[in-house]
Amino acid sequence: MYLRTLNSLEDAGTLMVSSRELAAPLGLNPAQVRKDIAYFGEFGRRGVGYNVARLRDHLAEILGMKTRRMVGIVGAGGHLGHALALHKGFEKRNFKVVALFDKDPRVIGQVLGENAIQHISELSETVKRLNIEILMLAVPATELNSVFDYILLSGITAVLNFAPVRLPSTDEICVHNVDLAVELEYLTFHLDRNSVVT
Amino acid sequence: MYLRTLNSLEDAGTLMVSSRELAAPLGLNPAQVRKDIAYFGEFGRRGVGYNVARLRDHLAEILGMKTRRMVGIVGAGGHLGHALALHKGFEKRNFKVVALFDKDPRVIGQVLGENAIQHISELSETVKRLNIEILMLAVPATELNSVFDYILLSGITAVLNFAPVRLPSTDEICVHNVDLAVELEYLTFHLDRNSVVT
Repeated sequence: MYLRTLNSLEDAGTLMVSSRELAAPLGLNPAQVRKDIAYFGEFGRRGVGYNVARLRDHLAEILGMKTRRMVGIVGAGGHLGHALALHKGFEKRNFKVVALFDKDPRVIGQVLGENAIQHISELSETVKRLNIEILMLAVPATELNSVFDYILLSGITAVLNFAPVRLPSTDEICVHNVDLAVELEYLTFHLDRNSVVT
Repeated sequence: MYLRTLNSLEDAGTLMVSSRELAAPLGLNPAQVRKDIAYFGEFGRRGVGYNVARLRDHLAEILGMKTRRMVGIVGAGGHLGHALALHKGFEKRNFKVVALFDKDPRVIGQVLGENAIQHISELSETVKRLNIEILMLAVPATELNSVFDYILLSGITAVLNFAPVRLPSTDEICVHNVDLAVELEYLTFHLDRNSVVT
């Protein structure tokens, strides 16, 4: 949450931030923020605040985000897969989409950005050859089972699932389920708070 | 976060949950969870835990999620817009996509699910007629400016932005920026922790 907030501040051109300004969007109190950040080292100066870029870089390094990660997309032939393959927001955050997969023969060979869609049966070999660490799953809920066997066999350990069906993590694979409805719920809460105020 | 966790538990068929089980995935301690939930009323029983469905329903009501909300999609002609228009995860969480918009004449009239794509110039009238409360923005970063004037004029107060460029909230419009790279970063942190353990 700190990293996300610092990313926003940096995008907006903010150079310094106080613990109070950092606390507000996160719903924390400034004392908690100062305590948390003190764990990472000496970053703030009383009355001056934190250097946004320096604190951001340090957190990113702790969280392992300075390393460039290779990413593959399963279900690249669908609309969401297309959108993810062409999404401009991953590369600047050190994620590089290097391979696309689908099981539909009609989309194999189709080029999106820098990559052509391969058949899912090539997943295992491609993951090893290109050092892919994370797979994004953009397949319909009904196809999850049929692709999951390929994923298990590929030896991949991290999966980002966009299907509206939660996949549990296993001992081998850490699954993070993206829940788009949660993003709408965030706004709902705001709508109601607003209507109370006005 | 509580609601999201309770949704997962309910999806998985869990009937009762202890403060300890609720605390673990959130990185909280059980005492904090008991304290938080006590604000909402008497839900838990010592040694028995919380009834998942009852607690979930109560939180959803507090957060204003029992009300069905009408949603529109701007940029429905693109791949992400298509994916959002056909996404199965919104309706069961009380969000109903009732209108689709784009500015590209070639996609106007195209039917996705229950709706046909309308020209963005019809936004204002349609928002009022269908009581749309939230707009999802699925336009390329370069098109954000050109659609934003239509959005301002429509009187809408809540926008979910999927473009990889942050839009600031204004006095009139609360913008929630979806950051897909953050979801990958979550997995990165896991990858590194894993490699320390093994």
